[in-house]
Amino acid sequence: MKKYSFLFFSFLFLSASVVLAQSQHPNLILNKQVIAEIQKNLGNVPLFDKTFAGIKSQVDGLLKQSIDVPVPVDPGGGYTHERHKQNYELMYNAGILYSITKDEKYAVFVKRILDKYAVMYPALKLHPQSKDQTPGRLFWQSLNETVWLLHTIQAYDCIYYWFSKSDRDKYETNIFLPMAKFFYEDSPHEFNLIHNHGTWMVASVGMTGFVLNKQDLIDKALYVTEKDGEGGFIAQLNQLFSPDGYYTEGGYYARYALWPFFLFAESIQNNKPELKIYEVRDQILRKAFYSALQMTYTNGEFMPINDALKEKTFLSAELIYALNFVYDRYGEDKSLLSIARLQNKVSFSKGGIKVAQAITELTSVPKFKWESINFVDGPKGDEGGVSILRWGSDNDLESLLFKYSAHGLSHGHFDKLSFLFYDQGREIIQDYGSARFLNVEQKLGGRYLPENKSFAMQTIAHNTLVVDEKSNFNGKREQSEKFHSDYYFLSADNSDLQITSATDSNAYDGVKMHRTLLMVNDPGFIRPVVLDVFQVNSEKSHQYDLPFYYMGHFLSTSYAYNPFITERKVLGKKNGYQHLWLEAEAKTSGTSAFTWLNGERYYSITANTDSNTQILFTQIGANDPNFNLRNDHGIMFRVTAKNHTFVNIIEPHGDFNPTLEYSFNSYPAFEKIEVVRSDEQYTIVEIFGKNDLHWTFMIANNNADKYATHTVALSDGTKLTWHGPTSINKKKEKEHEKRK
Amino acid sequence: MKKYSFLFFSFLFLSASVVLAQSQHPNLILNKQVIAEIQKNLGNVPLFDKTFAGIKSQVDGLLKQSIDVPVPVDPGGGYTHERHKQNYELMYNAGILYSITKDEKYAVFVKRILDKYAVMYPALKLHPQSKDQTPGRLFWQSLNETVWLLHTIQAYDCIYYWFSKSDRDKYETNIFLPMAKFFYEDSPHEFNLIHNHGTWMVASVGMTGFVLNKQDLIDKALYVTEKDGEGGFIAQLNQLFSPDGYYTEGGYYARYALWPFFLFAESIQNNKPELKIYEVRDQILRKAFYSALQMTYTNGEFMPINDALKEKTFLSAELIYALNFVYDRYGEDKSLLSIARLQNKVSFSKGGIKVAQAITELTSVPKFKWESINFVDGPKGDEGGVSILRWGSDNDLESLLFKYSAHGLSHGHFDKLSFLFYDQGREIIQDYGSARFLNVEQKLGGRYLPENKSFAMQTIAHNTLVVDEKSNFNGKREQSEKFHSDYYFLSADNSDLQITSATDSNAYDGVKMHRTLLMVNDPGFIRPVVLDVFQVNSEKSHQYDLPFYYMGHFLSTSYAYNPFITERKVLGKKNGYQHLWLEAEAKTSGTSAFTWLNGERYYSITANTDSNTQILFTQIGANDPNFNLRNDHGIMFRVTAKNHTFVNIIEPHGDFNPTLEYSFNSYPAFEKIEVVRSDEQYTIVEIFGKNDLHWTFMIANNNADKYATHTVALSDGTKLTWHGPTSINKKKEKEHEKRK
Repeated sequence: MKKYSFLFFSFLFLSASVVLAQSQHPNLILNKQVIAEIQKNLGNVPLFDKTFAGIKSQVDGLLKQSIDVPVPVDPGGGYTHERHKQNYELMYNAGILYSITKDEKYAVFVKRILDKYAVMYPALKLHPQSKDQTPGRLFWQSLNETVWLLHTIQAYDCIYYWFSKSDRDKYETNIFLPMAKFFYEDSPHEFNLIHNHGTWMVASVGMTGFVLNKQDLIDKALYVTEKDGEGGFIAQLNQLFSPDGYYTEGGYYARYALWPFFLFAESIQNNKPELKIYEVRDQILRKAFYSALQMTYTNGEFMPINDALKEKTFLSAELIYALNFVYDRYGEDKSLLSIARLQNKVSFSKGGIKVAQAITELTSVPKFKWESINFVDGPKGDEGGVSILRWGSDNDLESLLFKYSAHGLSHGHFDKLSFLFYDQGREIIQDYGSARFLNVEQKLGGRYLPENKSFAMQTIAHNTLVVDEKSNFNGKREQSEKFHSDYYFLSADNSDLQITSATDSNAYDGVKMHRTLLMVNDPGFIRPVVLDVFQVNSEKSHQYDLPFYYMGHFLSTSYAYNPFITERKVLGKKNGYQHLWLEAEAKTSGTSAFTWLNGERYYSITANTDSNTQILFTQIGANDPNFNLRNDHGIMFRVTAKNHTFVNIIEPHGDFNPTLEYSFNSYPAFEKIEVVRSDEQYTIVEIFGKNDLHWTFMIANNNADKYATHTVALSDGTKLTWHGPTSINKKKEKEHEKRK
Repeated sequence: MKKYSFLFFSFLFLSASVVLAQSQHPNLILNKQVIAEIQKNLGNVPLFDKTFAGIKSQVDGLLKQSIDVPVPVDPGGGYTHERHKQNYELMYNAGILYSITKDEKYAVFVKRILDKYAVMYPALKLHPQSKDQTPGRLFWQSLNETVWLLHTIQAYDCIYYWFSKSDRDKYETNIFLPMAKFFYEDSPHEFNLIHNHGTWMVASVGMTGFVLNKQDLIDKALYVTEKDGEGGFIAQLNQLFSPDGYYTEGGYYARYALWPFFLFAESIQNNKPELKIYEVRDQILRKAFYSALQMTYTNGEFMPINDALKEKTFLSAELIYALNFVYDRYGEDKSLLSIARLQNKVSFSKGGIKVAQAITELTSVPKFKWESINFVDGPKGDEGGVSILRWGSDNDLESLLFKYSAHGLSHGHFDKLSFLFYDQGREIIQDYGSARFLNVEQKLGGRYLPENKSFAMQTIAHNTLVVDEKSNFNGKREQSEKFHSDYYFLSADNSDLQITSATDSNAYDGVKMHRTLLMVNDPGFIRPVVLDVFQVNSEKSHQYDLPFYYMGHFLSTSYAYNPFITERKVLGKKNGYQHLWLEAEAKTSGTSAFTWLNGERYYSITANTDSNTQILFTQIGANDPNFNLRNDHGIMFRVTAKNHTFVNIIEPHGDFNPTLEYSFNSYPAFEKIEVVRSDEQYTIVEIFGKNDLHWTFMIANNNADKYATHTVALSDGTKLTWHGPTSINKKKEKEHEKRK
């Protein structure tokens, strides 16, 4: 990790040169000034008061009750697991209540709980349920234990001065120090890991260091066990995010990582301001936050690339924290307040009270803008990326995410050049996300289910090309992590014609893939249509499958198909195919259209199928004995060839209004797609539709120069001339005829 | 129809004795006074202004454009169909705009459209697409044509005085009179029908009579073609609603019927106030409205018994009209304003402006209360009924609808003793509703699909008993219409113990069914549990199937099952079974539990299964070549016996919170169900569960007397004594043990 040595040494120098000041308590997120500010404003800031009342009523309701601190037995979702989670949350909230109200009952409450942990914790061995995970002692995985420490150390910090010296000794000796040691000494792999689990661990250890005034813990947290900067918080800041702030595991895990990143950063800022942690790497934490937020859709959902649960939104606690800190530390961006309003909660922090005050004072706030945006991946920004094209307003935003990034660590999926499509505030063409029921005991204790690996991670589970029914890199993560897809071209300045394009020649041996997605807004359509051109080239013949997992109800096809209505078979044997029921299959002689209904709008995929194309309709759920998968549907185009260019037009159209009882334009406008040329140099596609629509779409396949001029002669003698890597000519068919 | 002769003759007398006054125009819904009131208030009543601005911007945008009046060609959803619908809506809105603004441009606009109809209409033959429906001329079914007339005659009425005499003659001679005649002379069956189609027809003809001052049309509309009162509006008021206002086709169709009922009633009130139409049958229109509204759930959806589309809510135009009229004519019930606020629109009527004013003036309005309620069915109220049990607040209302009504005309389903269950603002155990995509051209032009009859109407599509894989009454409507289920008992006064119970001995020859549903609220549970006791008795052995169509994701079972994971077969051959895929099957030795997840709550069905019970898991969608059905899931209990008592406990439990990342109580609390006695006289059920739960549930099966005392000795010597038809003893298991 030579490349970060300069940065590392400069930090080490700073950290060594500053003698740790005698701590004041609390000294992490809350401190004297923040508490005073909260006390001054309490009762006058509705959103803050509401948040405060929420934790107060929770804790007050339990003050008199005995709080169980059970011997750890259960995995995620089980009683002891959930109980220990509730306990740290209760202690954390009680700590905050004590800080603000100075009412001793909250301190007594925390003492009662901590006393039990101080008896139990030293005797604990590894958790009995920890099989294939990094084990904890209180919890089946150490990850939960770091979250426990991160919360509990804050509660302890809040009540620090109220505890007797002997209590403090007891807690530090029996709980905090051994737990920290358990992390850095007994879980060195996890502790040194450049991964969100590593971040949770170092944050909890570092924050413990600040509270216990242990420079050694702080240094370990910042620069890992060997204090060499090969791991630890600073290395994580440098390596887990791309220069754009894109988190290599994707938005869903960025969300989760932001929590320890920001809590530890804020603790560092309050204790070691000389580190200027918020400025590190050109404000990488600010960028990380905004990139995570931009990875959400207007319904709050993190677009679920890689392992992601769709239930997770920007309403989650970690985004509340992060937003509050960002608002406070990075110039009070008022557009964040529109998200904070939806969150309807703030954190107990300087940022939290500021956000709540701003919302109270401002009569109107600017809306957060979901924009067309591109993120590079990789610490140096040279490992592909993710781009998002957007069109329309918040209440009906068309969004397309295109993934051409690096693998994304252990939660990455084999989904090179896949995309996700949203409209009407909902998924239209989905990414399955992950097969997991968070914390649900019946579903493997909330762990990732076997179908996560056997289906959700596989290439066939995504809206991208599968070669010979195998996943990218044969489904081998260590192989996939060596490569990434490559940016080819992006243009999103003109909202009527947004383009993203990328290539990959590593996912399949000897196969070159080049996908270009356009969002084309045209007066002839109610909303932009998506033009999807997927060129694949190989010297050998392969079976190419291109699936689209549409959401909504099948309406019609422009062709006859053979439905399997009395017996249903499985599509394949492995690599995810074993989880697909074959519902119907079809052959067509030319351009084909498939239409479905989702919400109050129709959607069609018009495809350049021909007599060599097989069309397969599938339902997810075969070979799923525990009913772990959602039974969603897909359409798949299958071609056996050396070189092939799939062209698909995704068209939102018409209006289905059951309330006002009308329906119109339930058929697509596109009628014919012809690939007139597709080779190493150029792809030229002619598109015809209703009302004499005739578009010609051109891509230069091996020259992404924005200023290059291209001239191509078609077989009919027509000459096409354009500038830059892609272009689209729109003309009425009749004019075209005339020109001929 | 002798029973209504008195009512009929008294109306005939009144109508004959009053000479029709020289009409003022408009004279239907709007009149001089209402228009003056609107004009006076315009600009001061936001909700009304918004509604007004809505139609103004719609019409203004099209004023200069040519409006197409195409020769009718298409079925529902097709261009000409939708165009003629848009045309009547435009004319209606333009008529209103003219009335209020007196701006001639709106009159000119309507004239331009009517002129085209006046040319086209006389030459029209029957619509080319009308196959299996009552044909129209403008539309594929006459129903749409009556809606056209009902709107257009109002537009004409609004602009009446502006038209030249020769225009009026032209429209009346070429359009209105022949269209009315087409209805009463060429469609006598429909016109005389006691059915919502009949109501639309008579309302449009009667309103035409008021505008054209044709007593003959009015009398025909009120008392049908022969003016004998055997059909027509008055007969419809008497026969389509039960004394409670329950509409025999169910809430969804009540909604649709309310439109012509209220528009014609308001027109009658304005023209023939001496008929006191709003007072008829003890204010049957008021009752009809409230019963329809009570048949909705808090999400606005009409609980979809019989043929119903779930997309339809109380936001639809007909409910806006009806609510406005009811508010005005029946004492300004302020709780209706909470619904009007959600509708966010009013009608152009006296009620509409009143509602909008009230919403402006009142700072807070009482909430409309969805209550536990029972409706009798049948004109005399002696044909069974529908009961709804409810518990909780609007934002999380538990609702159970139990159907033991008459068949419900042509849209009725074969679903005796079925139920629907809602919670969390959504469906938990669903009724499929109807198989139809309203106005979607690809789906049979928006008509009912074949699967509506082959699946949705069949008994197996419902949460009720199927005997020998046949539907109630062998699926013969004419047979089903002769019978109804019977009320046994209802008690909803105690919100902690609500009970509904009914019997049926006609749906299956020689089979007696008795179902009792309890909503039991107990401190041991977060919300009420539903106890479902279904006793079936026959002298011969039968196969009894009891399905539950749960919504949500399968989590776990308390037993092993055999899943069909590589090949899927169809459950049966006919009567709806041909549409069910068999996903898994199981045998258990005793009480069994099945748990699923829906939203943020867990649900379980704990069942008194034994070694004779087969458990089948199904998915809807087999034998569905056009993908017309939704692929929802069900669990089914199958027993072959003469007499059997199914006991199922539906238990909402726990909390699944992905935002705050916790989960608890994902397993049901009930553990054992034993039917210790079930015969003609009594059913006694013992229920055991966690935390020493021990309940005993007793039903007297042949004595519904509320005051009767029952004493039953159990085989272990215990004596149970209770009063009334049902009772539940709750005790801790340990106490029970002690008692023994």
